[in-house]
Amino acid sequence: MKKTPKGERTEYDRLELIREMEKTLPYKRFVHTMGVAAVAAGLAMRHGEDVRRTEVAGILHDCAKKLSAEEMIRLCEKGGIPVTTVERKNSALLHAGAGCVLASQRFGITDEEILGAIRWHTTGKPGMTTMEKIVFIAGYIEPGRKDLPGMDEIREAAFRDLDEALVMILTNTLEYLESRGSEIDPMTRDTCDYYKKELGRKT
Amino acid sequence: MKKTPKGERTEYDRLELIREMEKTLPYKRFVHTMGVAAVAAGLAMRHGEDVRRTEVAGILHDCAKKLSAEEMIRLCEKGGIPVTTVERKNSALLHAGAGCVLASQRFGITDEEILGAIRWHTTGKPGMTTMEKIVFIAGYIEPGRKDLPGMDEIREAAFRDLDEALVMILTNTLEYLESRGSEIDPMTRDTCDYYKKELGRKT
Repeated sequence: MKKTPKGERTEYDRLELIREMEKTLPYKRFVHTMGVAAVAAGLAMRHGEDVRRTEVAGILHDCAKKLSAEEMIRLCEKGGIPVTTVERKNSALLHAGAGCVLASQRFGITDEEILGAIRWHTTGKPGMTTMEKIVFIAGYIEPGRKDLPGMDEIREAAFRDLDEALVMILTNTLEYLESRGSEIDPMTRDTCDYYKKELGRKT
Repeated sequence: MKKTPKGERTEYDRLELIREMEKTLPYKRFVHTMGVAAVAAGLAMRHGEDVRRTEVAGILHDCAKKLSAEEMIRLCEKGGIPVTTVERKNSALLHAGAGCVLASQRFGITDEEILGAIRWHTTGKPGMTTMEKIVFIAGYIEPGRKDLPGMDEIREAAFRDLDEALVMILTNTLEYLESRGSEIDPMTRDTCDYYKKELGRKT
C-alpha cells in the first residue's frame, strides 16, 4: 500500500483498495462493499468517528469473502484466530476472521481499530468500539439491502443511537436464523444480550 | 430499464444503472458517484426521505459529466432547459441540466424528484425538496472528498440539519470561487441567500 512520506494514506491508496476489491469480488458483492463503505463513512460523520479510517474498514470488510473454506481456515490459523466448531460447519462465518488477517498481511493494514471492525462485522462482540459497531451496522443497512422487516426503523435508529440499532439488528438476525433452524454462532447471542443490557442501562 | 410486472424498479436495475455509470465515467468519478449515492442514501435514512429513490438520484447525478459542451447544450435544448451565459462560458456547469435530460431520455427516469435532484446538484436553488438538498450535500461531503476547510463541521451538520449544511457549503463555495476570480452562477448566490434567510427564520 502506497504511503506519503509521513506514512499517511493517500487518495490513490483508497482508489487502489477499491480497485482490488472490484477485481476480487463478484460485481454484486463489490457494489455491496461500496455501499457499506460509504454508509459507514456517513455513520462516522454522524457519530464523530474518523471518516477515512472507517471507510477503509468498510472497503476491506469482505476482502476474504470469495476464498475457499480451506484458505480461510489457513489464514485464521496464520493470524492466531481460533476457528470454532460452528465456523467449521458454516464457512461463511469464517470470512470475517480471515479478512482481518488478509487485510493485515496483504493490504498492510496495521490500524487495530480497522482490523477489529473487519474481524467483528458478522457476529459483533460485547464491548465493541464505535468503528466496530458502525461497520457491523452498515453491512445490514446499506442501500442495496432488501427491505427486511423493520428496515426503515433500523436505518433511522442507526443515525440516532448505535446501540439501539445493534439490538434491533441482532434480534432480527437471531429470529431469522432460529426460524430457519440454522446453527447460531454463540458470539451473536452474547453480543445481543450485552447490548440489550447496555440499552437498559441508558434508559 | 427493466421493470417488474408492477413497474417497480428491481434490484437488477440498480446494478444495471451502476454498471452503466462505470462504463461512462472515468474510474475516479465512478468511485465519487458510488460515494455520493450511498451517502445520499444515509442522509435519506437520517432525514426520513425515500432511500431507494434518493440512491438512484445519487447514482445518476453525474451521468452527463463526460459529454462534450456541444452534446450537453444539445441535451439541454432538447429538454427545454435554458442555457445561461455563465454556463456557455463554463461548460462544467452544464452537466447538471444535461444530466437531468439524459436521465429521463436514456435511463427512463420519470420521477420528478429524482430528475430535480440531478438538475440542481451543482448550484442548488431556492426552495429545494429534501431529495434535492440531500444530493447537493452528498456531492460535497462524500468520503472521497479532500478535507476542505470546515469539512468535519459540515459533515456533522449534514446529519443534523440539512439547511445548516447547505449554508456552510454554499458559503464555502462562493468564497472559493471569489478567491479564484471564477465566474459565479447567479443561482448559487440566490440559493445561499435563500437558505441563510431560512436558517434565520428557524432560530
